[in-house]
Amino acid sequence: MKKSTTLLAIACLFLIQLHAQEALQNQSLVSPEVHADGRVTFRLLGPEVREVKITGDWMPPEAYGRASVGLKKQGDTLWTYTTEPLPSELYWYHFIVDGVRITDPANAHLIRDVASVFNLFIVPGDKGDLYSVQNVPHGTVVKRWYDSPGLGKKRRMTIYLPPGYEASDQEYPVLYLLHGAGGDEEAWSDLGRATQILDNLIASGKAEPMIVVMPNGNAQDEAAPGKASGSLVQPAFMRPNMMAGDYIVSFGDIISFIESNYRAKTDKKHRAVAGLSMGGFHSLHISRYHPNTFEYIGLFSPAITPRNKAEAPVFQNMDETLKTQMENGYALYWIGIGREDFLFDEVTAYRNRLDALNMPYEYVETGGGHVWALWREYLTILAQRLFK
Amino acid sequence: MKKSTTLLAIACLFLIQLHAQEALQNQSLVSPEVHADGRVTFRLLGPEVREVKITGDWMPPEAYGRASVGLKKQGDTLWTYTTEPLPSELYWYHFIVDGVRITDPANAHLIRDVASVFNLFIVPGDKGDLYSVQNVPHGTVVKRWYDSPGLGKKRRMTIYLPPGYEASDQEYPVLYLLHGAGGDEEAWSDLGRATQILDNLIASGKAEPMIVVMPNGNAQDEAAPGKASGSLVQPAFMRPNMMAGDYIVSFGDIISFIESNYRAKTDKKHRAVAGLSMGGFHSLHISRYHPNTFEYIGLFSPAITPRNKAEAPVFQNMDETLKTQMENGYALYWIGIGREDFLFDEVTAYRNRLDALNMPYEYVETGGGHVWALWREYLTILAQRLFK
Repeated sequence: MKKSTTLLAIACLFLIQLHAQEALQNQSLVSPEVHADGRVTFRLLGPEVREVKITGDWMPPEAYGRASVGLKKQGDTLWTYTTEPLPSELYWYHFIVDGVRITDPANAHLIRDVASVFNLFIVPGDKGDLYSVQNVPHGTVVKRWYDSPGLGKKRRMTIYLPPGYEASDQEYPVLYLLHGAGGDEEAWSDLGRATQILDNLIASGKAEPMIVVMPNGNAQDEAAPGKASGSLVQPAFMRPNMMAGDYIVSFGDIISFIESNYRAKTDKKHRAVAGLSMGGFHSLHISRYHPNTFEYIGLFSPAITPRNKAEAPVFQNMDETLKTQMENGYALYWIGIGREDFLFDEVTAYRNRLDALNMPYEYVETGGGHVWALWREYLTILAQRLFK
Repeated sequence: MKKSTTLLAIACLFLIQLHAQEALQNQSLVSPEVHADGRVTFRLLGPEVREVKITGDWMPPEAYGRASVGLKKQGDTLWTYTTEPLPSELYWYHFIVDGVRITDPANAHLIRDVASVFNLFIVPGDKGDLYSVQNVPHGTVVKRWYDSPGLGKKRRMTIYLPPGYEASDQEYPVLYLLHGAGGDEEAWSDLGRATQILDNLIASGKAEPMIVVMPNGNAQDEAAPGKASGSLVQPAFMRPNMMAGDYIVSFGDIISFIESNYRAKTDKKHRAVAGLSMGGFHSLHISRYHPNTFEYIGLFSPAITPRNKAEAPVFQNMDETLKTQMENGYALYWIGIGREDFLFDEVTAYRNRLDALNMPYEYVETGGGHVWALWREYLTILAQRLFK
């Protein structure tokens, strides 16, 4: 028995060593380490490199990026940096090693934003906890293809079904949640932590159980890069005809797919549409172009003006269709933007337009720029206002 | 009209520049570039770095990893390397910059294996095409939590529903597909390309439409790192009691969840279980411990011997329970392993044991070690044999 235990231990060690061939590196170094007081320590092994810097979204913005700060070499191989205490949040960062941008090899938690990949970490507390997986009932996340006759293709979407959906025969209200330029059907569930936010708000009774539909807003695409047929294209921010009106005009394809395939409530009172940046643009124009369809509209740091094919019929008669939308009525038309957002003036001009039409809306102005930290916050605010 | 077009162009440029703050880097460099003849060119910008190497799974294995090769500096900033023509496959790689392991900043396509993150690319052709998204009907991928009374917790699983599942009222056979040590409920769908393989095999009529259930085989965990409640722990290969028998004993929780929540055929003839490495170990012992449950058993590079708590009741009476399994009958008991696998001798000993029992099985011996390239291939072989 002793002997066989020893043999097992040896076999086990062998297994570890050989498996290391493919998958086991950087297991021992802890980076980042989030301290109880909110300070965060980053570590990188680099005996041969001359300079290691870190940049992350707790640092001040600069003209073409964020500020960065150097790690210090301790001894022969270890580079470290410790922040001041950071407020509770979900943060991203990456290193720059001798001028080359890298992710932290000791941190397997990554998020992609357009074509750039960042590490993430969470400082616990109010926001950090809201964006984390908690020990609460969890919704189901579905990646499903649907047919869009209006766009002439099969397309992929992400659908969040609230906890208890499968076990009930209840019908649920639906939030259509739209991503920005460079995003896709994975943006809100991954970068936006929509799954965690909804699970946690529903569990605490702050949000109604709802279906959340996260489609792909790039009309010319089937799906996210790597999920569409063909080769593994690199994600891009600019897409041909990115903000042309086809997606807006054909949005009924998505609504009717959801309402005929899920236990969705099918009346206006139980439909909301919200989105960030290009998705705010989409929410604005979708809710106006289909004017008696949505009871709740959320524009997060929205673009307003079309960037392509502004002469298309869908973009005509703005005031007239907004007026119709207003006359048909809605419970909430919500606009949020950060004061440092490059779209701030465009949104101010739009608010003036709404004021001139006497069209009611709620407006939240926060600090910050055109960043995901705000959009997670706006979703948190809006989700608590829906379907009540 | 001219003027407003110019203004839009300027606004658009502005939008691109500012959005660059968070998400736009490395957009212009193409890496990797897969040439028509199968050669692949890698590129990295690094004016300040002294050495750039690349390692990938087309290179020969070494004691603690794969061989690597240097990129050459062309001019002041660009490092490049071009391979010989590579056979059609899905490959992984990463760079090493002045001794630091990094992913390719120009390639957003990443896969995580345990705690290490790799870039991936596909050389088109037979295998490459099978592992790619094709223009065929797509199944639905569901991330869902279930209750495991046997393990005393709610746990997360990935479920593949075949194309047409939602529109039909048909019942489907079920393949339970199990990951290895260090993996989780995301391993087979992401690293293993199970979604693409099944979509493509079903579309070409080579595999029957089936539900594929990919649970989490780490009995002590709720879910993959980052998907379980609590902080963002770093994935680890070794887990406490990693191969203790609890998961084997409680596997009925997963079967009954699937059979009561999905249109699954609920008889032995329509159940298969297969897995890689630790998942092969699980498949062996689950099919033996629940001896009249599975018609098809697939062991891919399996571990055989328990690494923890070998004295537990579930691991006793091996020969007796195998004999019962044999007498109850099954359509296929399939074992595949690579000649360079460190588990080769353990599998040979197991085959001798089966031979001594006169227990029938099919055996496929291939080149290669303990690697995902083989497990994708084995899934491709096995999936075509199931439920026919």
